[in-house]
Amino acid sequence: MNALGRHLLVELHDCDREALNDLDFLRKTMVDAAIDCGAVVLGDSFHRFSPQGVSGVVIIAESHLSIHTWPEHGYAAVDVFTCGTSVRPEKAAEVLIEKLGSRHHSLVEIPRGVLVTV
Amino acid sequence: MNALGRHLLVELHDCDREALNDLDFLRKTMVDAAIDCGAVVLGDSFHRFSPQGVSGVVIIAESHLSIHTWPEHGYAAVDVFTCGTSVRPEKAAEVLIEKLGSRHHSLVEIPRGVLVTV
Repeated sequence: MNALGRHLLVELHDCDREALNDLDFLRKTMVDAAIDCGAVVLGDSFHRFSPQGVSGVVIIAESHLSIHTWPEHGYAAVDVFTCGTSVRPEKAAEVLIEKLGSRHHSLVEIPRGVLVTV
Repeated sequence: MNALGRHLLVELHDCDREALNDLDFLRKTMVDAAIDCGAVVLGDSFHRFSPQGVSGVVIIAESHLSIHTWPEHGYAAVDVFTCGTSVRPEKAAEVLIEKLGSRHHSLVEIPRGVLVTV
């Protein structure tokens, strides 16, 4: 299929709840995951909520990674959106599944920008 | 369904190509779309690529909006990810479809964080 981007939607359940509330850890882990999958990091924006939860995005030259956490449910929603052939988004997903201690996850890939060529 | 988040994946085809390459316009339009759907904007990060294309994310208290554009194809990939009941992500999608002049789009909603309650 002729798609411009690969978008992985990763549902991380039964994670380490402390990790899900640790902004510094999550920022470093997300940036590391981006680098590990071959991406070039351009910037990031992370925010911690009261009483709990973190949202963060890492912008990469190949699109973005995002995370939203609900420590009270042990759950994180992760997206890894990449374009080009020099990155392996699965690798970033693997890193995050492991580092967040998820004991139950699902991963769906959605092709983005499917161009119809006649 | 008991989901923590609503995630709209919006494929915008046949857009105004100049708009897709205008970082300032895209940042303003994305922030406006976030506000219009009832979200609280916390920050943003936008980058323009050479020779063309823009990536940007708006972090909101209710999750995020993102955009990646391919002006050469008249295409933009937009995500609107929200949690809570005070926001209407469809409204943000509507605003972006209109402002980017998309003449052909698709929209899929993926529930995120579906918690199994016994």
